[in-house]
Amino acid sequence: MKIGFVGLGAMGHAMAERLLKGGHTLIVYNRTRSKADDLIDQGAVFVETPADVARQAEVTFSMLFDDASTEEATFGKDGVATGLSQNAIHVCCSTLSLAQARRLRDGHAERGQTYVSATVLGRPPAAAAGELFVITGGAEEAVKHLRPLLECFGTQIFDAGRDPVQANLVKLSLNFMIYSTIEQMAEVFALNEKAGTDPRKIFEIMTNSFYTAPVHKNYGKLMVEHEYDHPGAPPVTLGLKDMKMFLEAGGDYDVPLPYASVVRDRLLSAISAGDADRDFVVLMERARQDSGLK
Amino acid sequence: MKIGFVGLGAMGHAMAERLLKGGHTLIVYNRTRSKADDLIDQGAVFVETPADVARQAEVTFSMLFDDASTEEATFGKDGVATGLSQNAIHVCCSTLSLAQARRLRDGHAERGQTYVSATVLGRPPAAAAGELFVITGGAEEAVKHLRPLLECFGTQIFDAGRDPVQANLVKLSLNFMIYSTIEQMAEVFALNEKAGTDPRKIFEIMTNSFYTAPVHKNYGKLMVEHEYDHPGAPPVTLGLKDMKMFLEAGGDYDVPLPYASVVRDRLLSAISAGDADRDFVVLMERARQDSGLK
Amino acid sequence: MKIGFVGLGAMGHAMAERLLKGGHTLIVYNRTRSKADDLIDQGAVFVETPADVARQAEVTFSMLFDDASTEEATFGKDGVATGLSQNAIHVCCSTLSLAQARRLRDGHAERGQTYVSATVLGRPPAAAAGELFVITGGAEEAVKHLRPLLECFGTQIFDAGRDPVQANLVKLSLNFMIYSTIEQMAEVFALNEKAGTDPRKIFEIMTNSFYTAPVHKNYGKLMVEHEYDHPGAPPVTLGLKDMKMFLEAGGDYDVPLPYASVVRDRLLSAISAGDADRDFVVLMERARQDSGLK
Amino acid sequence: MKIGFVGLGAMGHAMAERLLKGGHTLIVYNRTRSKADDLIDQGAVFVETPADVARQAEVTFSMLFDDASTEEATFGKDGVATGLSQNAIHVCCSTLSLAQARRLRDGHAERGQTYVSATVLGRPPAAAAGELFVITGGAEEAVKHLRPLLECFGTQIFDAGRDPVQANLVKLSLNFMIYSTIEQMAEVFALNEKAGTDPRKIFEIMTNSFYTAPVHKNYGKLMVEHEYDHPGAPPVTLGLKDMKMFLEAGGDYDVPLPYASVVRDRLLSAISAGDADRDFVVLMERARQDSGLK
Repeated sequence: MKIGFVGLGAMGHAMAERLLKGGHTLIVYNRTRSKADDLIDQGAVFVETPADVARQAEVTFSMLFDDASTEEATFGKDGVATGLSQNAIHVCCSTLSLAQARRLRDGHAERGQTYVSATVLGRPPAAAAGELFVITGGAEEAVKHLRPLLECFGTQIFDAGRDPVQANLVKLSLNFMIYSTIEQMAEVFALNEKAGTDPRKIFEIMTNSFYTAPVHKNYGKLMVEHEYDHPGAPPVTLGLKDMKMFLEAGGDYDVPLPYASVVRDRLLSAISAGDADRDFVVLMERARQDSGLK
Repeated sequence: MKIGFVGLGAMGHAMAERLLKGGHTLIVYNRTRSKADDLIDQGAVFVETPADVARQAEVTFSMLFDDASTEEATFGKDGVATGLSQNAIHVCCSTLSLAQARRLRDGHAERGQTYVSATVLGRPPAAAAGELFVITGGAEEAVKHLRPLLECFGTQIFDAGRDPVQANLVKLSLNFMIYSTIEQMAEVFALNEKAGTDPRKIFEIMTNSFYTAPVHKNYGKLMVEHEYDHPGAPPVTLGLKDMKMFLEAGGDYDVPLPYASVVRDRLLSAISAGDADRDFVVLMERARQDSGLK
Repeated sequence: MKIGFVGLGAMGHAMAERLLKGGHTLIVYNRTRSKADDLIDQGAVFVETPADVARQAEVTFSMLFDDASTEEATFGKDGVATGLSQNAIHVCCSTLSLAQARRLRDGHAERGQTYVSATVLGRPPAAAAGELFVITGGAEEAVKHLRPLLECFGTQIFDAGRDPVQANLVKLSLNFMIYSTIEQMAEVFALNEKAGTDPRKIFEIMTNSFYTAPVHKNYGKLMVEHEYDHPGAPPVTLGLKDMKMFLEAGGDYDVPLPYASVVRDRLLSAISAGDADRDFVVLMERARQDSGLK
Repeated sequence: MKIGFVGLGAMGHAMAERLLKGGHTLIVYNRTRSKADDLIDQGAVFVETPADVARQAEVTFSMLFDDASTEEATFGKDGVATGLSQNAIHVCCSTLSLAQARRLRDGHAERGQTYVSATVLGRPPAAAAGELFVITGGAEEAVKHLRPLLECFGTQIFDAGRDPVQANLVKLSLNFMIYSTIEQMAEVFALNEKAGTDPRKIFEIMTNSFYTAPVHKNYGKLMVEHEYDHPGAPPVTLGLKDMKMFLEAGGDYDVPLPYASVVRDRLLSAISAGDADRDFVVLMERARQDSGLK
């Protein structure tokens, strides 16, 4: 199939490459062209604007950093919406605020265009291995039509519902559970450390009993090893962006989220402590500081 | 080996039976004698007091409901301490406050007696299957000596350290993580339900992606099915007892525990709502109520 | 002096009338012209746009409902900025987000125009009596120049600093203290009510001992009398708007605000309970509900 | 009247002296006798035990540091209850946990003795000036009978109800409002300080507008001046003792107290930071630290 891909950051690039390797024809666009070089070597065609991508593709994926870049690449001058034909589909995989998710849904609807939200769970290496978790939201037929494409990079495809926004809320919710699990473990590690038990011991007990999920093992490990500065670490600022969007979602639906507010405060405090660019598991240090642990 | 067991509630009974099946000679005591009948049929000897148990056994286990019953059975008239000989060991498996855990440690020490804390993670059926997680605290030699016994009911034995109290704090910490994970999921379920997505769908996505631990699967399942009244459900009051002890532990070490306070408030609110005796996962209803979900 | 006034809601109207009674010439604009009728009878001149107001006035006040209406009336087509001359001053009294406060500051600066923020504390009756508290932010000379005008409706004029945004933050802070004091009293009233002591008794003791401020007396009274629906009651939605802006301010400066988050959750919960349009003291009912009080 | 007084700490001494100056005959007891010397010079009679005090007095006041000292001085060997006659009254003015307040109520009732709780608001200097606020709980007749005595040191006498415990809960509630107001101001001061506005300026605006209560003026002043170490400063440990009792009260009645939990965490964190013995307004430093303010 002729597939378009807009946004070739670490994540987008890995997903696009999987589609290419899946035997599809790939038309790509990225603000920094060089990021596309190796894909071009593998046969991808680079075009000058997101609109050009949409004009040639049956399905156009977009994977951009945030609300603003997504809005611009979709409804801006030479955006996807400008080129998208009636029988084509725009699939947005970005992590967005619900406000932006609604703008995409409604903006495409006004233009009589088909739009599907397909948010993804996992890091670039998982994408490269085709092991992402994909959460879709949109019209049943369109979602079914996309399935084989999503399976190029996704090991499991979950259907969140007919409203694309539902998929975005699920994504924000799953991200919240990461930060919330970190706070939960941070309180446990700090208390036991102060009582004289090495957090690595607690981590071992947790992850070999009831707390065996990747969310426990992956983040807990970084926490007890104090690995806050490894390459490609997702920074505190990213966590704050996620929590801001999740709390706004709570505001949209009048749902109090006490845990989310605690996490937000920890992240703000981490930034004030100078840890803005370190792995967000560094919020463990907030719990340690409040406990007088050096 | 001649093993004593004091306290034959659902949990204690299952553990005692495993020891018996392990080929050990069992001397038992329980306030309600009838609870011991089937063990007696299998060869266990029933005696009149905890002291009598301790007098005859090389190792005396105790598994009682709370601080008060443990204190009474240990240092009360005819308590374990009265009968425990110098070369015997008292192993307490109860979930206790750190204050009580210290009383046990110090009270036995004053008497020159050997005491080990061996807290357990899991429900009676897990005990009956020998699949508990055991966390030990105490003198290295004593702990090593007990290992084969603990393996009668424990699939994994973790060593928390040389101070028995450390094992009690680990147990309180792991229990906190249960309630905290429930609150975390409750916020996510309530928000998505209000946005029109069935919590069962969220549960499916969670438990098939990054949130695959027993703590997610077992409690999340009960939450989305609203199963608050199944037989043997651990009640809200038990959860509150655990959280009270965990927060007191935070107080002992001057460690703030914001998440634990949120859980405490939810449990108090659940009791005020009339749910004191329902499965503690019912605190999901507090999040639903605050969101205006009927 | 020739004074302009844009925005004649209950508050703006009372302030404008005070300026008129102060012997100043008044040029006014309001979207709904009828709101200006009585002022016109007293000699005020009504013009067609905010720009027309600014063109004729030496000092142009604006008092509008929110960020959007303020932005439109200032920098929109025919906005104040279009007509404001170099030696004139725009004084904005609205309660705004810090983001909007910065837009006003920077937008006027780019145009080489003088801008002062003069936020006010108090209700319309206080304005009509000239008993508002006014907090100014802006260039020293401009602020000094405005003093006599501000004294027309303000009993005390406080200088928050040279940056107009500081005055907006002080205003948001003082509003937060209202909601926060309500939550504080709600917890006390609910607990004592459940213990059998009439909250009116607690209110009497509080307000006759250490808790004698207007914030205690005015709001506490409404709370214990359950007066949630009196005419002109400031609604829960207004409280939520304020708290949203205050929490955003915390985000701007990376300052955790745990109390503010608790209040936000209470307000969201009040809206979910159907109390969106009732006096925001109704959040007392959230504390009562959580305590099982009917 | 023949009045007894047990417990001559700074507070008790000032109250006893007021009774003496009120023309009453005073029988006193204190563990450290020297504390009574000046009262003896003024005619007070020192006796050897609380029981001896109660034997001779028509009304015996007690003002002790905490639950334990109160329990000992009341129901211990040679305690007040041992000497109290049927037509005498024991009046306890201490700040106690509700559990201890109930023990006093029930212990005296079992003995057929009359007991009244008369908690006080204010510092020793206020007591010396007869300007305490007194909150009574107990049988109507007994309370009425005591009024003239309470007026010796109290400027206002409030009646909380017929159950003595109600007066204790009111006292804990009013203390909570002190700490809670401090936290509230700390968040405001920290945020504005980070935005470049001197907290002293905010304090001036607050205390000259809506936040004019002693609780704002007295504690706010210490906060903005960072006066954490003045002589006679009530320490963080005292604050923590109060909050512990207040939160336990919430537990007794199943009432969630989110603000109280935030304060508790701040106090624990202050102790971990090494501020245990400083004025509890030092919790302002926790808000500053979380905001990265040095």
